[in-house]
Amino acid sequence: MPAVDHFPADQWARVLAQAWRDTARGRLGYQHPLGHAGLREEIAAYLRASRGLACAGDQVVIAAGSQNSLDLSYRLLADPGDVVAMEDPGYLGARAAATAAGLRIAAVPVDSDGLDVSVLEALEPAPRLVFVTPTHQFPLGVTMSLERRLALVAWARRTGAWVLEDDYDSEYRYGSRQLDPLTVLDRAGRVVYIGTFSKVLFPSLRMGYLVLPPGLVDGFEAAHLCSDIHRPVLEQAALARFMEQGHFAQHLRRTRELHAERRICLLEAARQRLGGLLDVQEAIAGLHLLGRLPDGVDDRAVCDAAAARGLDVWPLSLHAVNRSTRGLLLGYGGVSPALISSGVTALADAIEEVLSQAPAAV
Amino acid sequence: MPAVDHFPADQWARVLAQAWRDTARGRLGYQHPLGHAGLREEIAAYLRASRGLACAGDQVVIAAGSQNSLDLSYRLLADPGDVVAMEDPGYLGARAAATAAGLRIAAVPVDSDGLDVSVLEALEPAPRLVFVTPTHQFPLGVTMSLERRLALVAWARRTGAWVLEDDYDSEYRYGSRQLDPLTVLDRAGRVVYIGTFSKVLFPSLRMGYLVLPPGLVDGFEAAHLCSDIHRPVLEQAALARFMEQGHFAQHLRRTRELHAERRICLLEAARQRLGGLLDVQEAIAGLHLLGRLPDGVDDRAVCDAAAARGLDVWPLSLHAVNRSTRGLLLGYGGVSPALISSGVTALADAIEEVLSQAPAAV
Repeated sequence: MPAVDHFPADQWARVLAQAWRDTARGRLGYQHPLGHAGLREEIAAYLRASRGLACAGDQVVIAAGSQNSLDLSYRLLADPGDVVAMEDPGYLGARAAATAAGLRIAAVPVDSDGLDVSVLEALEPAPRLVFVTPTHQFPLGVTMSLERRLALVAWARRTGAWVLEDDYDSEYRYGSRQLDPLTVLDRAGRVVYIGTFSKVLFPSLRMGYLVLPPGLVDGFEAAHLCSDIHRPVLEQAALARFMEQGHFAQHLRRTRELHAERRICLLEAARQRLGGLLDVQEAIAGLHLLGRLPDGVDDRAVCDAAAARGLDVWPLSLHAVNRSTRGLLLGYGGVSPALISSGVTALADAIEEVLSQAPAAV
Repeated sequence: MPAVDHFPADQWARVLAQAWRDTARGRLGYQHPLGHAGLREEIAAYLRASRGLACAGDQVVIAAGSQNSLDLSYRLLADPGDVVAMEDPGYLGARAAATAAGLRIAAVPVDSDGLDVSVLEALEPAPRLVFVTPTHQFPLGVTMSLERRLALVAWARRTGAWVLEDDYDSEYRYGSRQLDPLTVLDRAGRVVYIGTFSKVLFPSLRMGYLVLPPGLVDGFEAAHLCSDIHRPVLEQAALARFMEQGHFAQHLRRTRELHAERRICLLEAARQRLGGLLDVQEAIAGLHLLGRLPDGVDDRAVCDAAAARGLDVWPLSLHAVNRSTRGLLLGYGGVSPALISSGVTALADAIEEVLSQAPAAV
């Protein structure tokens, strides 16, 4: 969760009112399946500036957040029974939607350089799709190395597979190191870029987008026609105005500072109070940090003990096919510094409780 | 299209502003996959009163219009390769989504009593699903007889098939005759009811709903989680207020009168100016009328000739698997009486043009 407590609600109320006046005047009927033209242009301009994507508005498709982008992509780019390669551990929602689309999942391990592309290259037959989070791997938080990125786009070109690059929280970067997205490195048009406003505005807006190689645009138009005709228009128009008027850039600057402060606050509190209990890893981007538990400690038991203290922490194993992967996901974006501090104290208690109950040697 | 020119834009602006204040105060994070609880309750109350459905709010699922309800239903209730029975002629969007979901289509003819259930009963093996529009068949405009309704729900109980009952424009009824929806007649929990606000509010809102047999609710929750997590929350909250405050009932009364006037206006203009060219059928519900062309006249050629005169008319054959079905769909909901009158004149010209070009005997 981002810092929704600092969302500029009054500014949003104004762009909503403006957008409704426009909508009522001529956009009450069916609209374009790919989305509001002005918003698609604003998103393309934003991605050209922020991510170096050489994209035009007509390559941008509006979707209901990353989940919807994935669902549409799976259904359009693969057939039931096809294999999709996924990071392990990786985003649970991406796995669930793939299973719902009838795809088989090939779990590919992730190390400190991101997805292990050599494992992918060895898969026979080659998967039809691969889902990756190169900027800030979910949930481990690592960044894919340039060497791996180049190997991945070369593999996709060679095999004709599609790469789904989910850049879900790249807006929040805390280091200087910034690598080109796969979409920029790809010269063969095999990468679909997936972005979302859930992390930079708010999740209940359900607004995200895909950036497509030009040859896929007609297919996604048909996919939208079949699944929902088009996305509701009012909030698309409001967001277009929010971006045009500069509020989006301003909000991003403000939340970048806020999230950076909260991240430091969590790292500092962890250093002071979680030594020996949880090894919290620094990550260069995003809204959460990963903590490694001592060997043999069940992350789900810790999460239950934390929940009993009113603390919502996710177990790493929830997102893993290989369940020996244990750890905790600590989201800090939507949590004030005071709550981060008291939360870390409660978390230390929860881990100690589980440790005290565990068999002496596991 | 409904009479969106009479949509109460100022009232909607007020409920939007109220709904945004509520949303900003505590609903910016992820919400319930099945939809806004208050809206689900309002819809259930509305359907109990208007359609006699004995449903509770927790059986109602919010979806992005009927198209999205169909897409979710196809994916959840059938597997790729399964057969779905559909009315022929029938709604093109329903066929397209079924094909996209990997289903095979069994086209079942429609006569003046609606879908021919005896043809359905003879299909071997029995289809897994059947899609029907009993209140006001799209596109023919006929109403399914009570006998057929009872036979259809009995068939579904016997075979274990699911019935998708799309009640897309039942709010607009012009006769006294009103039969129970299949959902009311069904005692075995085999019917999924699909409704939409596209025809009673406006299409670009993309808001509709399903009413489910209780056993299906968990499955649709999972389907939403995989496809979009949940629908955007703001306009759900706005619509809940619009209904709570009585604006919805008032708008419905007003548009019923407006649409009734427009329907009479179209029937009268057709009687005066389309004699011998187009036999316009009366229908007891909806926002469009069907016109039968003289034998051998190509409905697509007439639509092209009408389009050249600035008139948007749909060919019946577009919605037919059996393409010998010819006719014109004349939407009147979104058209003022003055435009209906000039449109009918232009349509008479267009039909005459095509007749004059046709071979003497076809």
